[in-house]
Amino acid sequence: MTYQVYDTTLRDGAQREGIGYSVADKLAVARLLDELGVGFIEGGWPGALPSDTEFFARARKELELRHAVLVAFGATRRADRPVADDPQVRALLDADTPAICLVAKSDLRHVERALRTTAEQNLAMVADTVSHLVAEGRRVFLDCEHFFDGFRFDPAYAASVVRTASEAGAEAVVLCDTNGGMLPSWISTAIGEVVERSGVPVTQLGIHCQNDTACAVANTVAAVEAGVRHFQCTANGYGERPGNADLFAVLGNLALKLGLPVLPEGGLEQMVRVSHAIAEIANLAPDTHQAYVGSAAFAHKAGLHASAIKVDPLLYNHIEPETVGNDMRILVTEMAGRASIELKSKELGLDLSDRPEALTEVTNLVKQRESKGWSYEAADASFELLVRGALGADLEPFTLDSYRVQVEHRDGGAVVSEATVRVRIGGERVIATAEGNGPVNALDQALRSALSRHYPELADVELADFKVRILAGSHGTGAVTRVLVETVDRSGRDWTTVGVHENVVEASWHALVDALTYPLARSADPAGQ
Amino acid sequence: MTYQVYDTTLRDGAQREGIGYSVADKLAVARLLDELGVGFIEGGWPGALPSDTEFFARARKELELRHAVLVAFGATRRADRPVADDPQVRALLDADTPAICLVAKSDLRHVERALRTTAEQNLAMVADTVSHLVAEGRRVFLDCEHFFDGFRFDPAYAASVVRTASEAGAEAVVLCDTNGGMLPSWISTAIGEVVERSGVPVTQLGIHCQNDTACAVANTVAAVEAGVRHFQCTANGYGERPGNADLFAVLGNLALKLGLPVLPEGGLEQMVRVSHAIAEIANLAPDTHQAYVGSAAFAHKAGLHASAIKVDPLLYNHIEPETVGNDMRILVTEMAGRASIELKSKELGLDLSDRPEALTEVTNLVKQRESKGWSYEAADASFELLVRGALGADLEPFTLDSYRVQVEHRDGGAVVSEATVRVRIGGERVIATAEGNGPVNALDQALRSALSRHYPELADVELADFKVRILAGSHGTGAVTRVLVETVDRSGRDWTTVGVHENVVEASWHALVDALTYPLARSADPAGQ
Repeated sequence: MTYQVYDTTLRDGAQREGIGYSVADKLAVARLLDELGVGFIEGGWPGALPSDTEFFARARKELELRHAVLVAFGATRRADRPVADDPQVRALLDADTPAICLVAKSDLRHVERALRTTAEQNLAMVADTVSHLVAEGRRVFLDCEHFFDGFRFDPAYAASVVRTASEAGAEAVVLCDTNGGMLPSWISTAIGEVVERSGVPVTQLGIHCQNDTACAVANTVAAVEAGVRHFQCTANGYGERPGNADLFAVLGNLALKLGLPVLPEGGLEQMVRVSHAIAEIANLAPDTHQAYVGSAAFAHKAGLHASAIKVDPLLYNHIEPETVGNDMRILVTEMAGRASIELKSKELGLDLSDRPEALTEVTNLVKQRESKGWSYEAADASFELLVRGALGADLEPFTLDSYRVQVEHRDGGAVVSEATVRVRIGGERVIATAEGNGPVNALDQALRSALSRHYPELADVELADFKVRILAGSHGTGAVTRVLVETVDRSGRDWTTVGVHENVVEASWHALVDALTYPLARSADPAGQ
Repeated sequence: MTYQVYDTTLRDGAQREGIGYSVADKLAVARLLDELGVGFIEGGWPGALPSDTEFFARARKELELRHAVLVAFGATRRADRPVADDPQVRALLDADTPAICLVAKSDLRHVERALRTTAEQNLAMVADTVSHLVAEGRRVFLDCEHFFDGFRFDPAYAASVVRTASEAGAEAVVLCDTNGGMLPSWISTAIGEVVERSGVPVTQLGIHCQNDTACAVANTVAAVEAGVRHFQCTANGYGERPGNADLFAVLGNLALKLGLPVLPEGGLEQMVRVSHAIAEIANLAPDTHQAYVGSAAFAHKAGLHASAIKVDPLLYNHIEPETVGNDMRILVTEMAGRASIELKSKELGLDLSDRPEALTEVTNLVKQRESKGWSYEAADASFELLVRGALGADLEPFTLDSYRVQVEHRDGGAVVSEATVRVRIGGERVIATAEGNGPVNALDQALRSALSRHYPELADVELADFKVRILAGSHGTGAVTRVLVETVDRSGRDWTTVGVHENVVEASWHALVDALTYPLARSADPAGQ
């Protein structure tokens, strides 16, 4: 039996504050997880949530999974009726998935106080529902909710739920740390005791950890080290409260630290892409500091290390970043100093090694700007413009005389935005006005319109994303706004630029100017690429 | 010997992408950590960074620490000169702290390739520097950089560094997982072997973990379970790459799970406050999903659980949230349904239990708004206005006819913002114009000016924070902007409101209107509080 990588991003992960997937979103997430190569995708709770019922109906027609088995999630039968008459169990079968995961109570307190039934009735519900679904030809998993708390409270009862499910035909019985209070050493000990008390072999047990002690990944790894073969995770650790065990960290640890065959060939290299794409669909900013897949996971800031990293990068990374589809990055910050700025420039194809005066100029500019709230860590294109400027490139395709942006909420409720910019290109003065769906969009449209005749290549370039951060004025200077603009061209290449000002429109202006100057500067000096 | 809670937020934690503390920031962070009750605060590297030298100079005069010992961080002496002539070592003594932490190489590859010296010379540098500082009356800790990688590569050499430091008088020799590649079970095994090979008792060892496997907290706990008494962490896990072991999760686990005396009486309850205050100073959004201290750490979304949580909250939380200064929260979301909305309203002091039609109205409104990108999870005041509206309160202190906001970048570079609002209050039409340092500020000023005569109590209310989030238009609808506005009154009470629109100014308008309506609605209906 191989390892069962069981993903519950779409069910348990959707409990995270701020997440609300459409059915189309869920189908897209399922495709990504399948591309990664997980073994099981828990799609939702048919019957309980109408959109989950629709998901399974559409999945049957639209999803072609290469690796993964789709799983419907539901509960054991109601206490007051036979399993064959339970509409919720019927809905699980109607979802028509090869596998079903049932949740059952295994903490006697929850059986009595939340489910309001007896210890025996709960066991009968487990046995009946598992065997009914097995008889209908389904692979069945059973999640023992609040298992570890229940096992501590009444080990004999919790173990009897495990044994009952196994005897009724469950393929794996999953021990859930629902409240998330466990530590790795406790997991190891408890699993040994569960095997002994229940008689169920460890290879038929599964693990599901919540992150309330910040140990969900370690707890999952500890369970696998103890012999468990089935582990439930969510992409990026999304889930209720502090979340679930992060699928990517668990896979990275099992594959690269313990050498276990958890993903098909080529899967690991998809981790960064799949992680970021799911964050995008979930409408959450990717966690830049996430282990393995975060954009800062291999980012080095310390100026003291920068010179040594040049010599031997492997001594400073716990794995080769490319293994998981990530890159090493050198961060440009005040702390980093000249060595990092030289290294970062080289990464961008600009050699400062024999231009010490240019290196000094860039270093000083970065320090000065960062003290005012600018940040080049995420704005490589703005940084590259600084370096090109220090190397003598002409980076002023135009100069600004003035602009005016107006937003009106009119009588009747219509909201309109309009911008006018006045710029000089060469000797010529150009004025352009445009509307937009917001002030920054109007400004962007007006500037492009002004530049279009002289720089027709900018027609290929468009604003892809726009991020605003208010930096608290912690030193009595008043708050400033930092804007990051992401721009793409027709070939799919993208770049990020930054602007800072107390006025959000002016900050956006700076970022927009860099965003449009950048492709012009690169095409004017292709040798410098 | 008790446990040594050693915080390195101000030194290693400052390596995190995006962090740059001023000296005043560092003093404020040190005060907060002392209030929490940590034993040691590593303040920085005097001599290497000018601002760190200044920090120690000011700390001597300005910091009155009740619990913590201040520590200066630095390196062992240079290979090419005696310790007494090393200016970096001199700077450590000049910092005049009771304790000093030295970093030393313990991986032979780093000794040879990065430090470019010999195995023997490195040991001499450790011995000389430790004994010199001890002779000068300092408590000395020694961080063995890249310890675990080095121990795997050449266990005898790595152990000899530990033994050398201990024999030279180091109070604790700290095993650092600098590249962050360890797992808890490996930590336990390695520590046993280090004790055996070095002859240094486990109680004189320390641990310092990075989070590259998402196991830094678990690794730290595993080391303490193995007998280590000194552990190095950072507030909120800030640090390079995926960061360091999070101080709050480590303390929560050691105090509440293992029952160890790691903080003085009253310290644990400060965790949420200190965590959020340090995030504020670091200019980073608090991690809402952080274990123990995140605002979502005890937030329950699942509609299915909401009814059971009403009965017995302790069955659904791994600890009592109040123990660490946190609260349980019920989240208002589409998934949560009527039970959660009823519970949330009750939390706000509004009883919907005998008003099913009002409950239905609020539930439908929330669903409809959330499908358009509104989110009430972080906007309790906007949610309360919905509930009060459904209960029949009059929530229109004014109506808008129109507004106009203008931002101009003038010839010469001045940037000015101006807003005009036209509202009706009772039967009266009021027009007001104001300037601001940005479009939203100008709009806020103009609206307050228009309302000031009729509602003088609004003079006590001010906008405290303003957050903007662009929600990607994942379904072809175009991007919308969500604005959260935090408002405070003179008594320090604060409330958050939300607005959503494709135009950032209009989204801000909605949030501002709720922000000013909220205190008026509450004072009009004090019984509903």
